[in-house]
Order: sequence, then structure tokens, then C-alpha cells
Amino acid sequence: MKQVATIDEIRNEITELKAQGKTVAFVPTMGALHKGHLSLIRLAREKADEVVVSIYVNPEQFGPNEDFDEYPRQMEDDLKACENEGVALVFTPNNEIIYGSGEKYFSIQIDHLNEYMDGGSRTGFFEGIVLVVNKLFNIIKPDVAIFGQKDIQQFQILSTMVEEFNHDIELVAGPIARANDGLALSSRNAYISEQDRKIAPSLFRALQYVEKQIRDGVMEPKLLLQHQQDELEAKGFKNDYLNVFSMKTMEPVDKLESGKSYILAGAVYLGKTRLIDNIILDL
Amino acid sequence: MKQVATIDEIRNEITELKAQGKTVAFVPTMGALHKGHLSLIRLAREKADEVVVSIYVNPEQFGPNEDFDEYPRQMEDDLKACENEGVALVFTPNNEIIYGSGEKYFSIQIDHLNEYMDGGSRTGFFEGIVLVVNKLFNIIKPDVAIFGQKDIQQFQILSTMVEEFNHDIELVAGPIARANDGLALSSRNAYISEQDRKIAPSLFRALQYVEKQIRDGVMEPKLLLQHQQDELEAKGFKNDYLNVFSMKTMEPVDKLESGKSYILAGAVYLGKTRLIDNIILDL
Repeated sequence: MKQVATIDEIRNEITELKAQGKTVAFVPTMGALHKGHLSLIRLAREKADEVVVSIYVNPEQFGPNEDFDEYPRQMEDDLKACENEGVALVFTPNNEIIYGSGEKYFSIQIDHLNEYMDGGSRTGFFEGIVLVVNKLFNIIKPDVAIFGQKDIQQFQILSTMVEEFNHDIELVAGPIARANDGLALSSRNAYISEQDRKIAPSLFRALQYVEKQIRDGVMEPKLLLQHQQDELEAKGFKNDYLNVFSMKTMEPVDKLESGKSYILAGAVYLGKTRLIDNIILDL
Repeated sequence: MKQVATIDEIRNEITELKAQGKTVAFVPTMGALHKGHLSLIRLAREKADEVVVSIYVNPEQFGPNEDFDEYPRQMEDDLKACENEGVALVFTPNNEIIYGSGEKYFSIQIDHLNEYMDGGSRTGFFEGIVLVVNKLFNIIKPDVAIFGQKDIQQFQILSTMVEEFNHDIELVAGPIARANDGLALSSRNAYISEQDRKIAPSLFRALQYVEKQIRDGVMEPKLLLQHQQDELEAKGFKNDYLNVFSMKTMEPVDKLESGKSYILAGAVYLGKTRLIDNIILDL
């Protein structure tokens, strides 16, 4: 495994792989790798001959009051984990390499798709993500790129970007990796106190409960969702959202229809830690 | 020479060229090819093994009151010209192939660089250009792309996009091709009446006159520029702008400094026809 930090180096390495006729799968990460990331890397190995992982905590996708400074960084462990998973190349650029220091004249604007869910709660979050991922796609030029289903809105927005910008890249979503008690794995779980950790799986249980009701025929789940939010609140969570969204437009849907695809998704705070989770509903 | 219209076809053809170890230079055009385009194609042949030309009149870069419908189209002549110049591939997509028919969620925003010059006069013009060129770059993935210096603001904006989006493409500007009397060649010259054609070179002469004065030491050319605009108006032109702009920021500059680069540029209307021209000043 090679670790490189500059754009010239990663391009040279990838040109070398392609000259050998190899296909490349790319797994962009912000480091602090957990079993969820490792499952994405394994999926990447199934999809292409070689795997490239980027480790870069992208400042553009953090709001001014968010946790950019506190975001967990553990480069040595991450590199070891990548090596164990058979990764060929790890790209570890710094901010100067990704954004340079001069004035910026270009930005990418997203309409509608980021109005609700995490886009509604985190201003500029998805613009920051598409800015860096568009760059990384042009730097790495992978055949396939793997993202986690946990960040389903990110996956849908990036899929739309790939389509509208004509990136020649197949996007693949890897399933949500969970702890034994159901909690979706996240680098931010490292922030959760021992006491809060015990109630953390309640978000997923609430989603599972609502999923079952919907599959049993509740096509207007508004009251049901409200009730689950009240229960989460009573347990000590602070609610951000818990709702059913259109898979296509990412907008909340009050009345579900069979034959359509939805995302049942929630975001809550446990102390200062924000947890998200979702279930895809193909009705 | 092959002409292809779909993204899959052009990608297959280019993959084929690259598998043969060939480099690719790309000349994006809106057709109605004249000697200016042909000089860009010749420059492209010097820069890479094979040349790909696109012919596509991009609706997104025309305003609602502009000449999209009237823009000259002459596909058969254009294909013959490309063949004569040794072009390997001509890409002739339609609107459905480039933009599809569904709702669009992404746009590219440009700050500052499009406030003056053509960007100031033509709302949405450069956003339309970067939208289509970003797509074409991702479809063609050339090693080099050639644009004309006549559209100097376009060239500077696209160079900035390449840098900020990390496209792995070298941009090259081809010099302005001119008629014997100095008129910059343009597909839109086809609109000019015979009578107007006689005075059309006055724009370039005005620029040359101002250039000489600046090179002779006039570092605050404001009055000089105003006087030239008055003379053009007296000849029957309608002025849009005639000014000196910073090469870096594309903003007007009142007081020039030696050691810096500027664009001396003008835009005028002759009847309904818009003419533009420019001279690069490295002082």
C-alpha cells in the first residue's frame, strides 16, 4: 500500500494502475475509520481490481458552529486498517492541496435536494460535500465510487451530480453497518458518553417500529412519527427530524403510495452528538 | 473521421484512441466553422495525437432575447471542414443527450469573474458555458482543450474552473483569426449587412489605437476610451463596452501599472449583430 498526499503523486499512481489494465474503486472518507468504512472498502474490492481510499476532513462541509476541530483524527490507525483491507493507495491531502490559498470563484449550487433532512439542518453541508467530491472524482477518476447508505441524502445528491455533470463513474451504496444493539456505526459515536450509549440504539428502534407499521399498511404515518419523536424526547434525545422522504426529491411525504421508493430517516442529538439513521422503503 | 452523437459512442471511440496510447486534443465549437475555428483545430493537432471537435449550439448560454434560433447552422459544411483538417472524431449531440428532459438540480455559480465584459452584458451567459463545458470535459476527458482568444473572458473563466474543479486538462488559447481588414472572425459575422461590413473593422482599429497610446505611456486611458467610443457611435455602432480589464479578476482598471497583464476589450452592436474583440496587454 502506498500513501500519497499530492495530486501529482496520486495521479501518477492511478495512471500506473490503469496502464496495467486495472479498474479502480474509490472510497472517499474523513478518516476515523470504523467497521462501516471497512465494509465499504470490502465492497470496493468486489467492484474493481484496486481500491483507492482518501482520508480528508473537508472543512467546507462543516458549519461555523459544527465539530470540525473536534472531529476524530487517527491517521496511523486508519492507515493500518486500510493496509489490512488490501487497499492499494491512500490519498491524504491537506487543505492547501485541495483548496489552495487564493480567492475562489466557483461554487456548485444544489436546488431542492438539500432543502430537507440533513440539508435542511446543516446549511452549506451538501454544497461543501459536492465541492470536494467533484474535485476528488476529477483527481482520482475512478471507475466506481462507494458511499455508505447511512448518508443516504449524500448518496442521492452525489448520484444526481454524477448524472448532471456526466462523470463517468458508477456510484454504489454500501449497507449501513451496525453495532450488535442496532446503533448505526459512525465516527461521531466516539463522542457519545457511556450512559448515552445505552439509549443510542433507540433511534434505530423507532425507525424499525415505524417501518413495521408502514409495511402493515399505515400510509399516512405523521402521527406515528410524532409519537416516536415524543418518546425519543422523553428518553433524553433532542429531535432534529424523523420523517418519510421521497427517494427522488428528498422532500417529506405525508401520504405514501405503493410502488414508490421512500427514505424513512431520523436525526437526533444525544448531548452534543448528532446521530442519523435511515431505512429505505420500496413500497 | 467519425461522427458520433451519443455519449456512449464518443466515450467508446476515445477509450479506443487512448488504448492505442494516443493523446487527445478537444476543440468545442457551436459549428458554423470559419477560419478561426480551423486555426484552433490546427493548433490542436500540434498539441496532441488526435483531435476531437464537438459541434453543439448550447441553448443554456443564450439569453431569452438572444439569437439562439438564428444562430447559423451548417452541419454538412462543418463536417467537411473537420475532415479536411484531419479531425479524428466529431461529436454532434442534441439537447436531449446533453441535458436530458428531467428536472435539473445542479448549477455552477461563478463569482466576480463574470460581472463585467460579456458577463456583465449577457446574464447567465458564462454559467451556461461552464455548465456545458464541464459536461463536455467529463465526457471527452481530453488531454488538451483549445479555445479562441477572441472569447478571452470565456478562456479565463474556464481556466479558473479547470483549476478549482481539478480537471486534468491543459487549456490552450489560440490567437484571434482576422479578415484582411482586421475584423475578428466570428460565426456571427454572417449576420452583418454588406454596408455594415465595411465599417466593422473600426472596432479593432479603435483597440489598436488605444493599445498604441497605452504602450506610449498613457496609463489612465479613460478619456481615450471614451473618445474612441464616441467615434464608434458616430460611425453607426452602438457601444456595449470598450475598456481595460484586469487579466486576473476581469474587472475594469482605471490606472494601469507596468508589470501587470490586462485585456483591452470592446463589444459593439452593428444593427442587431454583436461584435467583440480584444488585445492582451502585458505591460
